[in-house]
Amino acid sequence: MNETVRYDWQIVRYQDNHYAVVDESIATEYPLTIFVNGEEFATMVCSPTEMNDLVFGFLASEGIIRKRDDVMALTVDEERGFAYVELHVPLNMEHHDHSKRVIGSCCGKSRQFYFKSDVRTAKTVTSHQMISPRQCYHLMEEMQNQSEYFQQTGGVHNAALCTVDCVLEVRTDIGRHNALDKLYGHVLQNNVHLKDKVIVFSGRVSSEVLLKISKIGIGIIISKSAPTDLALELANDLGVTVIGFVRGKKMNVYTNPQRIQELPSHADIT
Amino acid sequence: MNETVRYDWQIVRYQDNHYAVVDESIATEYPLTIFVNGEEFATMVCSPTEMNDLVFGFLASEGIIRKRDDVMALTVDEERGFAYVELHVPLNMEHHDHSKRVIGSCCGKSRQFYFKSDVRTAKTVTSHQMISPRQCYHLMEEMQNQSEYFQQTGGVHNAALCTVDCVLEVRTDIGRHNALDKLYGHVLQNNVHLKDKVIVFSGRVSSEVLLKISKIGIGIIISKSAPTDLALELANDLGVTVIGFVRGKKMNVYTNPQRIQELPSHADIT
Repeated sequence: MNETVRYDWQIVRYQDNHYAVVDESIATEYPLTIFVNGEEFATMVCSPTEMNDLVFGFLASEGIIRKRDDVMALTVDEERGFAYVELHVPLNMEHHDHSKRVIGSCCGKSRQFYFKSDVRTAKTVTSHQMISPRQCYHLMEEMQNQSEYFQQTGGVHNAALCTVDCVLEVRTDIGRHNALDKLYGHVLQNNVHLKDKVIVFSGRVSSEVLLKISKIGIGIIISKSAPTDLALELANDLGVTVIGFVRGKKMNVYTNPQRIQELPSHADIT
Repeated sequence: MNETVRYDWQIVRYQDNHYAVVDESIATEYPLTIFVNGEEFATMVCSPTEMNDLVFGFLASEGIIRKRDDVMALTVDEERGFAYVELHVPLNMEHHDHSKRVIGSCCGKSRQFYFKSDVRTAKTVTSHQMISPRQCYHLMEEMQNQSEYFQQTGGVHNAALCTVDCVLEVRTDIGRHNALDKLYGHVLQNNVHLKDKVIVFSGRVSSEVLLKISKIGIGIIISKSAPTDLALELANDLGVTVIGFVRGKKMNVYTNPQRIQELPSHADIT
């Protein structure tokens, strides 16, 4: 079976100049190749959990599918690292084409991708859901408490689907985009109502992350990390509230602050 | 001009339930499209600095070039975000093909990429350079002190080329792979001697990062973050010493510990 973490890597741990040989937990990196209608479509590396969610969410992020019923069949061969997807319609080669230009870097957003696929799938978020700072602090703490893998390895990202009061689903992956795609796949397969939901995320908010949030249809993203300027410009355009650097009882609201509740006091905290 | 950081994004900063409206520094996300011999090759997003280094290093990482002289001309149009590369030889379409499968996620390593391009360019590292734990702690601290961007935005990664005693060059990018590619491009363009060098890195060590280190020809990577299992298996195969979780005066040695100096005392620090 594929495990998200391997427990048996022997390391030499140093503290100052002393050392000990110990077993360490290491995050697993697992290559998964997706075939669509019999044709090789893409290979990604991921943490080997919830791969059905990952395939659904990835295809939706790429604009290949829009809803659960677009997929006729999905089989994952965990042993060999292959996923076979049958769609009800032929794969549009135009789709195939633009996915080829996305570069495998940590911020793999392509201008072409942005201009073509994203115009097709990104949409302005109209959610009127409100949230208070205390709810944000609480959700971030909840997600981190639930992520045993991060505590073990320090090498994975988390994305959590939440109401303003509690964490509903957490997805974990060594790739931050994969963690979000797994959440997207879960939402699609279960027809989750999204207007009252928020996403809590451990990673940086790049333009690609922001576009995924908008495609999923979520109005508020709460990140432990920082956003980029392009992500914030898109967030303004698409009506997404970006809350970042949520650590302890501090946070920054970068865009669309009208969704933040409880503004009783205005103090100088700079 | 393109800036790595924008200083003028107005945010609402909360501490507990109090807030203040302040200007915040935000990392810039800049799309760069690379044309090779007149043909569109790839689009990436990056921090808009040292783009010549980035283009050189990216093409070398992809196996398109091997040395500075493979490039006849390089022009970067910073205004529009285009880089034009002329090679001395036609672009092999086989190269073009495999780069299409790399997925734009944080861990964008493709099995196909690994099996084809990397076999061509990855090589076993034969460096006999040694390093002590204290030198590792010092280099990490030095790199972080030199990275003003990280301190401003929290949103960028750093890669530094170092001797065991001092930091020589730091490259910064919102994409961790881009930061390494910029360093690779610098090394290529300046014919830097590598046998006695090490790389210090702020990001996670995935298989893709490990393969880049091996392609550059460096024997020791010192990361602030965690490695994945696939990266460690490759590091064993390719003779790279992976040192991770370097924080303060602690660190873990995951592979090839024969390059670590000063093992005078063995104490139980688990």
